[in-house]
Amino acid sequence: MAKVYLTGCGMSRFGKREESLPDLIFEAFQGAQENVNSEYIEAVFVGSMNPEEFIDCANISAVIADRLNLEVPSFRIETASSTGAAVFHAAAQAVASGHYETVLAVAGEKMTHLPTPKVTQILSKVLSPEERRYGATMPALAAMVTQGYMHKFSLERETLALVAQKSHHNGSLNPYAHFQKEVSLEKILNSRMVSDPLRVYDCAPISDGAAAVVLTSKKSDIRVVGLGHGADTLSLHNRHSLLEFEATQRAAQMAYDEAILNPGDVDVAEVHDAFTIFEIIDTEDLGFFKQGEGGEALKQGKTSLDGDLPINTSGGHKARGHPVGASGLAQIVEIYWQLTGEAQKRQVDGARVGLAQSIGGLANNNFVTLLEVSS
Amino acid sequence: MAKVYLTGCGMSRFGKREESLPDLIFEAFQGAQENVNSEYIEAVFVGSMNPEEFIDCANISAVIADRLNLEVPSFRIETASSTGAAVFHAAAQAVASGHYETVLAVAGEKMTHLPTPKVTQILSKVLSPEERRYGATMPALAAMVTQGYMHKFSLERETLALVAQKSHHNGSLNPYAHFQKEVSLEKILNSRMVSDPLRVYDCAPISDGAAAVVLTSKKSDIRVVGLGHGADTLSLHNRHSLLEFEATQRAAQMAYDEAILNPGDVDVAEVHDAFTIFEIIDTEDLGFFKQGEGGEALKQGKTSLDGDLPINTSGGHKARGHPVGASGLAQIVEIYWQLTGEAQKRQVDGARVGLAQSIGGLANNNFVTLLEVSS
Repeated sequence: MAKVYLTGCGMSRFGKREESLPDLIFEAFQGAQENVNSEYIEAVFVGSMNPEEFIDCANISAVIADRLNLEVPSFRIETASSTGAAVFHAAAQAVASGHYETVLAVAGEKMTHLPTPKVTQILSKVLSPEERRYGATMPALAAMVTQGYMHKFSLERETLALVAQKSHHNGSLNPYAHFQKEVSLEKILNSRMVSDPLRVYDCAPISDGAAAVVLTSKKSDIRVVGLGHGADTLSLHNRHSLLEFEATQRAAQMAYDEAILNPGDVDVAEVHDAFTIFEIIDTEDLGFFKQGEGGEALKQGKTSLDGDLPINTSGGHKARGHPVGASGLAQIVEIYWQLTGEAQKRQVDGARVGLAQSIGGLANNNFVTLLEVSS
Repeated sequence: MAKVYLTGCGMSRFGKREESLPDLIFEAFQGAQENVNSEYIEAVFVGSMNPEEFIDCANISAVIADRLNLEVPSFRIETASSTGAAVFHAAAQAVASGHYETVLAVAGEKMTHLPTPKVTQILSKVLSPEERRYGATMPALAAMVTQGYMHKFSLERETLALVAQKSHHNGSLNPYAHFQKEVSLEKILNSRMVSDPLRVYDCAPISDGAAAVVLTSKKSDIRVVGLGHGADTLSLHNRHSLLEFEATQRAAQMAYDEAILNPGDVDVAEVHDAFTIFEIIDTEDLGFFKQGEGGEALKQGKTSLDGDLPINTSGGHKARGHPVGASGLAQIVEIYWQLTGEAQKRQVDGARVGLAQSIGGLANNNFVTLLEVSS
């Protein structure tokens, strides 16, 4: 694939926001256009999971282009909860095709204005219709995965809580995060039960927010070196294992192959932690740790901010927040900031290779993106 | 841009269908995979405008990949009523980028199971929220455009009816069309008023249906020679004219430039005729006729099946039908069949260059696609 670079990134603050979705995306765009005159932007790629139902608005790509005062072609891209990664990949392919030199990828979601049961109902539509018919919700299926993993690999409940504790610590250092406060293990372990054994602090929150990235074929600081995208069956009951996500493994293989890199080359990673168990599984699927050993690596501090391989320095979906369509692109913004040395209090020293991994639906359409400091 | 070819196309029959959206897309896919073993398909690009609200289903790209038994990466692409064209463009860019060799683009919509007022309400969400607030609907705005055009260019009501008559004639020759019957001018002119002066026969119907195209970088019969994509303001009141669509003009310029072709090189075209007036405006915006002269060209039979430049040989949105997300891709399938000599009773002799033009929303995100017989 032809070379593609990132030349500017921005984010809105994540959280409970009063602004409209177009206004949140505008806020993110303002940060992204610092290094580029907006007249060079030839097309806009817009990621949003379900603005039709969250905010009663369709034709979202044209709505956003209009709000950004960019009278240029636009595409809306959607792949459930990995939408933010998908929009980055589609934009990168458009630039690599030579059809465009410089494009903007934006992603956002506005959710907090709706009552939680309504949000849960909309979110559950991404599940297999077959399994949804039996009342499956995302937390219920994630709880099933958690139970299975805890049983097979003797993972302790306390270890899961460490994921949330680490995320909240990192979030406390991120001015864009939904939650910017430390949380004690005791509080996590005693929080309200959502779906046994997952408690409130094991689940990413409902958030509003947006992210923006400018991509270009002109040489810039950070290069896209690997784009991986992998799929799996829609229904969980058709998979041979619930304790790993083959869609991530396939996406990772594709990205590492394209980049000619190994898991050991990665200096910092953002992974999809919609539920605490996912972070542990993700770090195994990405080849950072052997299956069943992700929890132990976490306990030893390997994935902490000062560990060998810091994971979710932004606070992850858990603490940075999870406006579904935006999260995958927000991960890429965090990696960009880490590689350009702009991550402030959560900076990983000397990071040169970063990875973002995003899960679509219940791990049926996953993305892995590898970025590297340009040589 | 690197060379991209079409190597197989398929369609479901359009109309009032009992099958589900995934089943309609499967039906279209079966026709498209005649020339290609499905194990070579590396990714699926899925176009659907609003399955969330039409069929209560999200994560549509994963749902479709699953239904087609393709355990490969998928993207959902959406740009309102030009979604079917957008999904083709995104797929072509992915192939041209070198990231994939062979991909599948599918598009479909299931609408007829809902009551018409509900469909109209969902469709009106693509309009500018600002204008929608005042009760604007798509037919009401199209009627305003029609009134303006009739006044300025002295277009007669009877000429508009000729668009519908021609479409129904062509549809009568197309076994995939929603309507396969001739309609008399008298019937058109006396049909129920929708929004003055637009009558029922001036408006594309609510339809179900799907289309599928396989794209590849391996040399094949038909090549993508021009991809044009143009935008305009979301709100009509911000435009300098309602009697032409700049988004089409911009897309056409981009496509002609890329292909190094002129309007005079086009042998057959499918244009977006959601309303009869649009076909006349489209043929002007594409440079086939001067502004204000599209109606006269139609009257003279220039755009008839046996004319110099046959337009909407499929029957167009009017008679082939308009399952919104599918229509843009169905146009490309018709052009493919014309260029490969498979258009049966509606075959345009010796067609070598074909054009498809698709309108997103009220002409704010339009596409022009140029295909040519490979040399």
